[in-house]
Amino acid sequence: MNHFDEIDDLTLGALRALALDEIDTANSGHPGMALDIAPALYVLYRDFLVSDPSRPLHPGRDRFVLSAGHVSALLYAMLHLAAYDLPLEELKRFRQLGSKCPGHPEWGLTPGVDATSGPLGQGLAQAVGMAVAEKALKARFPGSEGYLSHRVYALCGDGCLEEGLSQEAISFAGLQKLDNLTFIYDANGSTLDNPTSVSLVEDVALRFKAAGWDVYEVNDGNDLRAIHDAIEEAVSLKENKAPSLVIVHTSIGYGSELQGSHKVHGSPLGFEMSAKAKEKLGYPYPPFTVKKEAYQRLAETFAERGHLALLEKDRSLKGYEKEHPEEAAILSSLLAGKSFVPPRDKFELKEKEATRNTSGRYLNLLSGVHPGLIGGAADVAGSLKTDLKGSGRFSPEDRSGKNLAYGIREFLTGSIENGILLSGGLFPYGGTFLVFSDYMKAAIRMSALEHLPTLYLFSHDSIAVGEDGPTHEPIEQLSGLRLIPGLLDFRPADGRELVAGYELALERKGGPTVLVLSRQDLPLLEHSSVDKAKLGAYRLEEGNDLELIASGSEVSLALEVRSLLKEKGIEAAVVSVPSFNLLGAMKEPPFRLERSRRIAIEMASGALWYRYAEHVVSIESFGASGKEKEVIAHFGFDAEAVAEKVLDAFLPSKGGH
Amino acid sequence: MNHFDEIDDLTLGALRALALDEIDTANSGHPGMALDIAPALYVLYRDFLVSDPSRPLHPGRDRFVLSAGHVSALLYAMLHLAAYDLPLEELKRFRQLGSKCPGHPEWGLTPGVDATSGPLGQGLAQAVGMAVAEKALKARFPGSEGYLSHRVYALCGDGCLEEGLSQEAISFAGLQKLDNLTFIYDANGSTLDNPTSVSLVEDVALRFKAAGWDVYEVNDGNDLRAIHDAIEEAVSLKENKAPSLVIVHTSIGYGSELQGSHKVHGSPLGFEMSAKAKEKLGYPYPPFTVKKEAYQRLAETFAERGHLALLEKDRSLKGYEKEHPEEAAILSSLLAGKSFVPPRDKFELKEKEATRNTSGRYLNLLSGVHPGLIGGAADVAGSLKTDLKGSGRFSPEDRSGKNLAYGIREFLTGSIENGILLSGGLFPYGGTFLVFSDYMKAAIRMSALEHLPTLYLFSHDSIAVGEDGPTHEPIEQLSGLRLIPGLLDFRPADGRELVAGYELALERKGGPTVLVLSRQDLPLLEHSSVDKAKLGAYRLEEGNDLELIASGSEVSLALEVRSLLKEKGIEAAVVSVPSFNLLGAMKEPPFRLERSRRIAIEMASGALWYRYAEHVVSIESFGASGKEKEVIAHFGFDAEAVAEKVLDAFLPSKGGH
Repeated sequence: MNHFDEIDDLTLGALRALALDEIDTANSGHPGMALDIAPALYVLYRDFLVSDPSRPLHPGRDRFVLSAGHVSALLYAMLHLAAYDLPLEELKRFRQLGSKCPGHPEWGLTPGVDATSGPLGQGLAQAVGMAVAEKALKARFPGSEGYLSHRVYALCGDGCLEEGLSQEAISFAGLQKLDNLTFIYDANGSTLDNPTSVSLVEDVALRFKAAGWDVYEVNDGNDLRAIHDAIEEAVSLKENKAPSLVIVHTSIGYGSELQGSHKVHGSPLGFEMSAKAKEKLGYPYPPFTVKKEAYQRLAETFAERGHLALLEKDRSLKGYEKEHPEEAAILSSLLAGKSFVPPRDKFELKEKEATRNTSGRYLNLLSGVHPGLIGGAADVAGSLKTDLKGSGRFSPEDRSGKNLAYGIREFLTGSIENGILLSGGLFPYGGTFLVFSDYMKAAIRMSALEHLPTLYLFSHDSIAVGEDGPTHEPIEQLSGLRLIPGLLDFRPADGRELVAGYELALERKGGPTVLVLSRQDLPLLEHSSVDKAKLGAYRLEEGNDLELIASGSEVSLALEVRSLLKEKGIEAAVVSVPSFNLLGAMKEPPFRLERSRRIAIEMASGALWYRYAEHVVSIESFGASGKEKEVIAHFGFDAEAVAEKVLDAFLPSKGGH
Repeated sequence: MNHFDEIDDLTLGALRALALDEIDTANSGHPGMALDIAPALYVLYRDFLVSDPSRPLHPGRDRFVLSAGHVSALLYAMLHLAAYDLPLEELKRFRQLGSKCPGHPEWGLTPGVDATSGPLGQGLAQAVGMAVAEKALKARFPGSEGYLSHRVYALCGDGCLEEGLSQEAISFAGLQKLDNLTFIYDANGSTLDNPTSVSLVEDVALRFKAAGWDVYEVNDGNDLRAIHDAIEEAVSLKENKAPSLVIVHTSIGYGSELQGSHKVHGSPLGFEMSAKAKEKLGYPYPPFTVKKEAYQRLAETFAERGHLALLEKDRSLKGYEKEHPEEAAILSSLLAGKSFVPPRDKFELKEKEATRNTSGRYLNLLSGVHPGLIGGAADVAGSLKTDLKGSGRFSPEDRSGKNLAYGIREFLTGSIENGILLSGGLFPYGGTFLVFSDYMKAAIRMSALEHLPTLYLFSHDSIAVGEDGPTHEPIEQLSGLRLIPGLLDFRPADGRELVAGYELALERKGGPTVLVLSRQDLPLLEHSSVDKAKLGAYRLEEGNDLELIASGSEVSLALEVRSLLKEKGIEAAVVSVPSFNLLGAMKEPPFRLERSRRIAIEMASGALWYRYAEHVVSIESFGASGKEKEVIAHFGFDAEAVAEKVLDAFLPSKGGH
């Protein structure tokens, strides 16, 4: 079917009407862009998107990301009309507690929603990750292309393109020649506050072309034929050539009395104004009326095409299974999210090693065990030790490369990881220096929102960074990450604890893991334990006078402090706390003395430790540039200085010793 | 002087040599880009930059930002040769504790350093803020142009351009036609990890042109004449036309044995290899040798030109003072950083009002009092209530407009504010929804690093956001901000506390202030107090059984809970804690009962409250989409539910009541 008729007009009317009905019923939502971009979304579903609404998680389906997540009402209307399991009752509860139609699309909640979106730019960036995943996964399983090949679409407005993250996404996708990726840009000339003439006057087409994209334009966003032709050109096979952008020029709030005004962006029209708009749009029916012809049209186009295409993919998989039974089994286990964990006895522990180096060695071991591993760093691979030796670099020339050079794009690094996990099958990792986790905070939060097991590696985890100085020395970052709901923070004190962190990350299903790594050497601790570390906190040494508690590099420091205190006749226990998340969930935390006899030691902001300790030795200012040991001494974190602070804190009661 | 001779070669040799000497002596630093971009920096200082090294803070000087902050050694070498107060002894202590030559440039520490840089992209973005400031300040004081007019230069490498923030900066500067702004881009084809072919293959010139910039290219980064000509073209007066980019093609590590390899990016050459490089570069002298001709050349060019130009500016100021004595006095007080605080009796308090609305009214009062006010929001001005009524919008057509539309560019919003403050004279504000403070976290940290009194406004400060759902509901953000060293967090409970927050922000000199505002109405509290709120925490109600402590909208909730408890015979005190930063510094915190009898209430992550309370009623998961009151009830934050939790926590000891 590639002509458009009055049934299409009716179906498009139903689509727009439903979106207005949702928004008016909730008295909340964004009608402006929903009205203007509806035709493009309709054509995309009618003629291009390959998916079966009854199998919304099929690995070979096309992905669609509504990067302009505030237009969720339109997406829900589309999914309903397209026969996804999203009944009218859910649309009537748009933006109500417990509805499958929340304010912004949420991955895992609504069938047909392929990513959580709303925080602008992140939909586009995650779509780039999905496109990477599509290329990388099928390259690892030659012969599986018929099953796995698909396209990734994302729809954005001006907001996404104003966010800097979009440029990271555009630049990376162009560099990687992700020809399986198409962005549709609703150029409606308006943002929430203003016409875009106030905030975005750039030549968007030129900006994408500068990054190596193919660009197509539709001058009239209501011309279904023109939209069809532009998308068709954009998706025509151009192997390893370029991602594509389709610019659709529209008029915000099309069909409503507020058409053309930014005031229609974020405020409901109200039933009265909507009724007029619906009449003008040729769909003059009461709220939530859907003519059966509308369902019918999408059943005959979108659903039937998708159904057949996925059956064909399944057949292709059958053939693949027959020809490559072992590989097919591995692929199947990857797609099922199976955990691949290296056997512990294969990993050698060193007496003294920076945990970033231990991490690098572990990754290389993992690379031989995990068929889905892919990752790298935001241009600090050499420092973060993320290179997988003997593996190539993912590139247009080598899609099977396991090393992913994200570039100096921290935010995108997190988004690509998220997109890869949303796509399914691969296990990504990525990271940078801990201080620059700030640049990717919103992506890390997104991992947690989406319940994805995203693995973040952050090294250079304290003022021990030294020479690079305060701009490169984390203070508040570790604690800040510990605050994110559902995030597993893990700061290993030595090699054994590092293994614990990796095992937790590899076994985890419902949320991200952050491994926080030292730049400097750390000794292998006599009593550290992989299994105990996996509990989140455990006792390393006993002592009845007080308890020293710490994480990461400060655990060995605490052990030194313990020795110094012993000379003074004070018996201090030492508790290692690699993870606040896990400690918070422990039924029996490993503390034996009362809170007033606990003292926490951290070379960073100490505010979170007060939950567990009355006394905290921490840093509440920014770092300094200097040699590692001098900076550490400057902030009072050599063992002698810490021991003195401990004595100061307890002297009143410990004077007798 | 506009030809180049052997003395220039010698001076350039000294510049490169000094940078290598610093790096080798510290055995830490980034020689690659220092070597290749030295000629461009030299030509900029020799022939263009207008500044007097003996008056490094003159308001009318040109600004220079080394956005590629890791090349600090080169900048220090340049500043030394150019006669800034930076003796060789400081260069010899490059990257050592207490040196004026830290790992990355730090504002306020080193004369001639106009911004802290190192976190990539932020130098460029702050330079955009400086360019805004130059336009905006002189437009407010017609006749002052001769004194205030200047240019802003920033030097970047590939790293800055890969960061998304750079696109926000480029797009905004193009839109605003900041023709006083010039970026110099060192196209050396390398980043830390790799040749740029791996991570950046875009057409940078086209990308800038798409945003409306003028672009000039220098094909040979060692051709001083070509560099001179390109910069000259770029800075030739084009009033209200376009910002300019000068692309300088170079070879990383020029002159060294590692020239052309990314391996020379971030590792010292070592004295031996440096000696060879210095010889090849025509400067075969022992470390830290400076030939007097080098000083002489820069004294005759840079210093003399700057000295005369600033004297001329001073004369122009004298004229301005004579013709406009009142305006000149105001300008002088602005440049001196005087605080302008509205009289309290001019501000009307309402019985019930969302603090975002109170903030909007206060801003409009402030607008009539503060001659330097400029600001807005990242496209949520309508929601954040940041519009100054009766004031225009800052634009190419109206540089006196006080309303600044940052666009959907949160990170840039913070950077522009920082840049405006670095420039001096104006008082900026900016913000977005609290949850999207994540996007600008790194800029907020930069405000604190630079000790700037940057004012951030964040509204929609809890799950009371309602319909927009979890992507738009802050949980960990408020606590995350409280962790930043030197940042004044302030979450007012009502209108009086809001006034307190603004007064603190306006009076503050050494660090940023974050005002955290409610979307929903809050009642004016009977016993709230501006003066007491400015202490950081104070008692609102007395009670001897337990203490309820809270901030913002949870303070009135605590008061409701108190009433419910009273019915049960329990006397609870209520303590309002608008600021953790201030509370942490209070000599006598306002608590009267022991910690075990305190209970904190916050509709967000509660982890930080354990420092002050044994019991915490908080939210440790993400929010939900629904009607405000239903979402609040869902998370157990109606007064009845909280009262029950309080009873649960204390029932063992309070069972007798």
